[in-house]
Amino acid sequence: MTLKVYLAGPEVFLPDGRAVLEAKRALAGRYGFAGVVPGDLVIEAEDGPARGLAISAANETLMRGADLIIANMTPFRGVSTDVGTAWELGFMAGLGRPSFAYTNAPELYRERVTRDVYAGEVRPDAEGRLRGSDGHDVEDFGMVDNLMLDGGIAARRGLVVRRAVESARLFTDLSAYEACLAEAAKRLL
Amino acid sequence: MTLKVYLAGPEVFLPDGRAVLEAKRALAGRYGFAGVVPGDLVIEAEDGPARGLAISAANETLMRGADLIIANMTPFRGVSTDVGTAWELGFMAGLGRPSFAYTNAPELYRERVTRDVYAGEVRPDAEGRLRGSDGHDVEDFGMVDNLMLDGGIAARRGLVVRRAVESARLFTDLSAYEACLAEAAKRLL
Repeated sequence: MTLKVYLAGPEVFLPDGRAVLEAKRALAGRYGFAGVVPGDLVIEAEDGPARGLAISAANETLMRGADLIIANMTPFRGVSTDVGTAWELGFMAGLGRPSFAYTNAPELYRERVTRDVYAGEVRPDAEGRLRGSDGHDVEDFGMVDNLMLDGGIAARRGLVVRRAVESARLFTDLSAYEACLAEAAKRLL
Repeated sequence: MTLKVYLAGPEVFLPDGRAVLEAKRALAGRYGFAGVVPGDLVIEAEDGPARGLAISAANETLMRGADLIIANMTPFRGVSTDVGTAWELGFMAGLGRPSFAYTNAPELYRERVTRDVYAGEVRPDAEGRLRGSDGHDVEDFGMVDNLMLDGGIAARRGLVVRRAVESARLFTDLSAYEACLAEAAKRLL
């Protein structure tokens, strides 16, 4: 039976998001997976909160029907993974499904936060924990993002693939995604 | 039997995070819940990735042992919920546990993104979907954050409480948290 992979990521927000998701689905097929993407269920609800709730319910249904998740953790609107994608990684972890991820940003979480949030003003406190200029702790575990994301993936037979890409292709380059598919196929098929 | 509530949020990153979490635990007790917080399990692992993985595993164990979650969705390091907290909301949704949340930032997601990411430069496209100056879709469902978060909470007997607080108390004010506890007690106890 072909394993179904739920393809999570911020592509849904791109102007050409549908095309990118279909390219990801086609590529999943070449590695022996059936790709499932947000939008595969038609939403009938009207605009506003009712529509938001209907899309959320549809995506939960799609994930329940999927065997694994591959998430695009490329930072979106800030220093971290899109929060919807983070939620979906958590949801699939709660369901006990294998989880894989990739990012087209090559830096670790500590590096991005140090540069983009604190303009370099990050120092260890008396106990050796890194803190920004506002005193907030900067996670420094050699991870791509918050430890719940990286840790949840590692605990479920997965890994996070990191690649640097041209900035114009930050959300559309699929080479790290393809490396993820190859690794998922090796581990699961 | 006393219900256990997992208290998720960015408090773990504050210099006085431990005190804030203990205040939240004490308040949970007054509403009939036993508060469970990150840090309740001792981590023996050394620094680096091994420690990150151990903390992640400990938090997953704490959540599995909890009956519900109350998450602090106050935006952290950007326009959205801390991604670790988002992951935890998803994880508890995957486990089917009731989910509640609050935020000390009064704006909706659309309002924050319009102001903080696009400096007001957000316009509807030909299909009426709001887009920022980079063409990226701006979710406009009258929700506090990404629809997976708000939707997942609404689907699990929960709600998101919004309150405006003084900026100095953005991460420490507990009035919205207390309103959340009161509502959780009403619905679950």
